[in-house]
Amino acid sequence: MQVLPPALEHLVDQLSRLPGIGKKTAIRLALNILRRPEAQARELSQALARLHQSIRLCSTCFTFSETDPCAICGNTRRKKNIVCVVEQSADLLAIEKTASFQGVYHVLHGALAPIDGIGPDELKVKELLRRIATEEISEIIIATSSTVPGEATASYLIDSLQKTNIPISRIACGIPMGMDIKYADKYTLAKAIEGRYSTT
Amino acid sequence: MQVLPPALEHLVDQLSRLPGIGKKTAIRLALNILRRPEAQARELSQALARLHQSIRLCSTCFTFSETDPCAICGNTRRKKNIVCVVEQSADLLAIEKTASFQGVYHVLHGALAPIDGIGPDELKVKELLRRIATEEISEIIIATSSTVPGEATASYLIDSLQKTNIPISRIACGIPMGMDIKYADKYTLAKAIEGRYSTT
Repeated sequence: MQVLPPALEHLVDQLSRLPGIGKKTAIRLALNILRRPEAQARELSQALARLHQSIRLCSTCFTFSETDPCAICGNTRRKKNIVCVVEQSADLLAIEKTASFQGVYHVLHGALAPIDGIGPDELKVKELLRRIATEEISEIIIATSSTVPGEATASYLIDSLQKTNIPISRIACGIPMGMDIKYADKYTLAKAIEGRYSTT
Repeated sequence: MQVLPPALEHLVDQLSRLPGIGKKTAIRLALNILRRPEAQARELSQALARLHQSIRLCSTCFTFSETDPCAICGNTRRKKNIVCVVEQSADLLAIEKTASFQGVYHVLHGALAPIDGIGPDELKVKELLRRIATEEISEIIIATSSTVPGEATASYLIDSLQKTNIPISRIACGIPMGMDIKYADKYTLAKAIEGRYSTT
């Protein structure tokens, strides 16, 4: 017997396709939406419907943007000669939140994962090489995650970019701020020791 | 400077109104939706738009339903004389999943919370009393949560229903299945001991 009414079941199916949302959470969300005024559901519905129509990729850095160039590439106060390479737009947002980076970005839209069929051609690597060849760039910061695919992507980029003679750097890996060393996992701790810096 | 494009920011705002979804999760969901084909966003959008139009409350048990009576109240094989009282439709779904209850339900749409201004009149209590007066009911199972509001609601219902002379029961409180006793909190453990049953 079908317990959920079809319209609710359909919304639950749609919601549970989102990352980190299982069937149980989807049911909780759908019932919550149902309990609230219809206007709120309509507004969420419209925000979803408009999303793809208004958002495109910046033709320089390939982040999601409503304008081309994006707000960062179009900002004259950003240092166009320092390019920070990230896997996803979400990583760019995380770095922007630190307010400590004044350069521009290059979004790869993924990381190397040969098993899933994601090679350099599936990422915006060609676009990065083209950008390096045509723009005046004085430093490339590789800010891919310190996961297996992120490290593989970083290694691949470091190899590919070596011949350009542009200084390349990789973001530091170590103990998170505020974390007690005894709770850090051994791999992070090893990286933190390996990457120790002189204070004198 | 605005980092998120407006259409994305708007969707993030809408998503973060949902329960358990903070700004960070909303950004992750919105970027994930953006990375996938537009058709999927459109389908989710339509499911949301249609939700309130297709779903109403069952006039008998007050659960969310596309039909009136709902699939459970309309099922001739369910025992109409056993009524299980729950706080929310989500609780009904959880009990239905156990496939161990053959009766019908009554959804209160909340629990007593005087501080938040939720008294018996805000819940479907009058409707329950009316139902008891007009239908032939031989048992009422009170399946409100074992939280403070849930227990208060249970106590209130037990008091209000006493004069009807219908047998009233309350679902058992104790150690969850598969849980190691040493990880149970002391209140649950006390309840489990208090509610112990004879096996002879």
